[in-house]
Amino acid sequence: MTVDVHTAIEQLEDELASSHLDSAHLDVINSLAKQIPTHELTRLVSNRPIVQSAVLFRVLKKDEALAVFENLPPSYQADLIQALRGPDVAEIIEGLDPDDRAELFGELPAIVVKSMMKGLSHDERTKTSIVLGYPREAIGRYMSPEVLSLHDDWDARRALEVVRERIHEPETVYLLPVLARGRTLAGVVSLRTLVGASPDTPVTELMREPSSVEAMTDREDAARSFLDQRLIAMPVVDAENRLLGILTMDDVLDIIDEEDAEDAARGSGSEPLDRSYMSSTIMQIVKSRIVWLLVLAVSAVLTVQVLDLYEDRLSQVVALALFIPLLTGTGGNAGNQAATTVTRALAVGEVRVRDLMMVMWREVRVGASLGLVLGSLGFLISGAIYGFQLGSVIGLTLLCICTMAASVGGLMPILAKKVGADPAVFSNPFISTFCDATGLIIYFTIATVNLGLH
Amino acid sequence: MTVDVHTAIEQLEDELASSHLDSAHLDVINSLAKQIPTHELTRLVSNRPIVQSAVLFRVLKKDEALAVFENLPPSYQADLIQALRGPDVAEIIEGLDPDDRAELFGELPAIVVKSMMKGLSHDERTKTSIVLGYPREAIGRYMSPEVLSLHDDWDARRALEVVRERIHEPETVYLLPVLARGRTLAGVVSLRTLVGASPDTPVTELMREPSSVEAMTDREDAARSFLDQRLIAMPVVDAENRLLGILTMDDVLDIIDEEDAEDAARGSGSEPLDRSYMSSTIMQIVKSRIVWLLVLAVSAVLTVQVLDLYEDRLSQVVALALFIPLLTGTGGNAGNQAATTVTRALAVGEVRVRDLMMVMWREVRVGASLGLVLGSLGFLISGAIYGFQLGSVIGLTLLCICTMAASVGGLMPILAKKVGADPAVFSNPFISTFCDATGLIIYFTIATVNLGLH
Repeated sequence: MTVDVHTAIEQLEDELASSHLDSAHLDVINSLAKQIPTHELTRLVSNRPIVQSAVLFRVLKKDEALAVFENLPPSYQADLIQALRGPDVAEIIEGLDPDDRAELFGELPAIVVKSMMKGLSHDERTKTSIVLGYPREAIGRYMSPEVLSLHDDWDARRALEVVRERIHEPETVYLLPVLARGRTLAGVVSLRTLVGASPDTPVTELMREPSSVEAMTDREDAARSFLDQRLIAMPVVDAENRLLGILTMDDVLDIIDEEDAEDAARGSGSEPLDRSYMSSTIMQIVKSRIVWLLVLAVSAVLTVQVLDLYEDRLSQVVALALFIPLLTGTGGNAGNQAATTVTRALAVGEVRVRDLMMVMWREVRVGASLGLVLGSLGFLISGAIYGFQLGSVIGLTLLCICTMAASVGGLMPILAKKVGADPAVFSNPFISTFCDATGLIIYFTIATVNLGLH
Repeated sequence: MTVDVHTAIEQLEDELASSHLDSAHLDVINSLAKQIPTHELTRLVSNRPIVQSAVLFRVLKKDEALAVFENLPPSYQADLIQALRGPDVAEIIEGLDPDDRAELFGELPAIVVKSMMKGLSHDERTKTSIVLGYPREAIGRYMSPEVLSLHDDWDARRALEVVRERIHEPETVYLLPVLARGRTLAGVVSLRTLVGASPDTPVTELMREPSSVEAMTDREDAARSFLDQRLIAMPVVDAENRLLGILTMDDVLDIIDEEDAEDAARGSGSEPLDRSYMSSTIMQIVKSRIVWLLVLAVSAVLTVQVLDLYEDRLSQVVALALFIPLLTGTGGNAGNQAATTVTRALAVGEVRVRDLMMVMWREVRVGASLGLVLGSLGFLISGAIYGFQLGSVIGLTLLCICTMAASVGGLMPILAKKVGADPAVFSNPFISTFCDATGLIIYFTIATVNLGLH
């Protein structure tokens, strides 16, 4: 043993023994571990108190962790898994800043992940997955590790025997992943195909290309893709295509329910509630709404300032004020119609970010057509009551506002997606406020010219 | 044969021969058929030209139709099914008023339905289902008639043999309905249970209570119940619990996709598009939006009239006009937040129509709290700029508007549901418009008192 390695081990032991492990400590442990050979790391992991062992093990790089794990005696492997699942390690990891966490903790080896998740309830799994290093919204947190897999050198008879023996263990038996060497995913066989096959057919002849997903994938993307492909189950793999678990329709529907509730809340300008509506306190509901309401009210101050600019013109023709809510309301509605259509088209993949100019051009024409109809009616009706000079201002303003609002409403969701925001969140209330302010400028510009104000 | 029956048959033959069959003719045929005994009806059905036979058969009552069908020679049964599927009969039925249709055409016997739907593609099935008499939105139109069912006197061995033989026929084999005498649904067995069972177990011991749905059920209700129960397939039965077909996840997801698109469109005040956004013409998009935009604009005329009432007060203090968009906008936002939360709570069954007063009381308190925060800020900021007399008007108005808007927004979806409308449709734009008009009345009432206007 060189002096360097010896020193590194001593320092590492000191760090591990610190009463309060934070990201600075873990950083040091991580870099010290890189200087220590595998057999020494294995010795360290099996000699330290079990929580310290688990922490050390957790900061090792994936390959190193696999090598260490395989060298541990089986009984110690079980203890280590137990410690990794325990609350102490989870607490240390959860206490860290998310960025630090992402940097320090890569994926664990597939074999360790599977052992850690096995036999846990859905809730326990969610808690345990903190330790796995998957981000909060990663699909890895939702998979079921109890998966019944086949081997690529089996035939249908052998496969069906295994299915029969273990029929009650996994969450689903209707889709069976087929593994090649090193647990990598080679394909999938449906139970239907397997039951219908003649017993001597090799599993490789029955299997088809799998629709799998990496554990780090965003949960909503994974769930939508699952539904779009009309799957019944989807294997979850690590970055090296090794099988970690399986995603079933139940998990997917839970995710979609939550995401839909979030989108609905944000689309109306409030935060989703953590609990159900009836069991939330009044203060929790107020909290979920107040921030958005404030932000929207502050942006609506824009409309006060715009009107302030035109106050002297307003005092010349007070009748102009009568139409303000009608005009801004219509603009908001036209904008929301366009935004909702385009948001949906984006969600189902029918419109892409690069179609920006095409969508813009469509909405300009749609908006102008809507404006032509509403503007003509506005001209006739308001003209008949308030005189045709004011009528022409109202008609012309409706034409311009509808064109502007539809274009802006169609554009916003695409721009939101371009900058990485959720189009459903960058949402209708903001479009309304924007259209209000812009609409007022259009209105008073047209009025100033048409009525000869100054 | 009595003279009466003889006359009835002759009249019926005359009616059937009319070149243009409308609901009046069909009514007469229907009542004449009631006077004719089954064996004569069977003779008639097998002797008339095939389209006439099909029409006559279709207006028979369910029991009568079953008796006639069973008395027909098998080759003629096939011809009749062919004619019922054909475009001529569909055209006659589709040409009728929906109310007449519902009155004249009950359900067909399960055995006829199954034969008619068998072997058809998804599109053909949708077309054929017109003839079945299911309303446009009934789940019967979406079921797959190719269903693999077991019999209640089989054992697991026999059941698994049948599944193996017919593995490629049905749309799903993962859920297997079990039939008792007369095709009535006794239970369901999952393929998983069947594969795991020992061969001698009777099917009745393996089966569990089925979650089935009647063919006449609204498609959205059926689909949501399917997803809520996390099913993989759901048997579809007629009013007498006889198996007609099976609903699979694919069908359910298609229905939910369409319903979600409809709700999203209507929630933003437009009609859903029949085709995708990019493939719709500009005129189709305009058409989907113009009606709602007009309706909303017409209801916004209310705001013009409200302001007209207060025109002389506006001319006394023009600065009052500056805050109109801010105040109406904030009211609309607060109303939409409440409406969206309550709509969602209704959808997931957490709030029921009878909770009306409880929701109202929650929203009054939430709205008042929101109004207190926004009102205080509004008082301070607008007071600092425009003087504290105007500031107090703005602050007080924000308090009242938020309370009113949250209560109205929370109430509307429940009232909509009470009168049988879709809460998602009775929607945000209407709440905004309503809150605009009410908010203006509140604003000018407070201003009149506080600023001593007259």
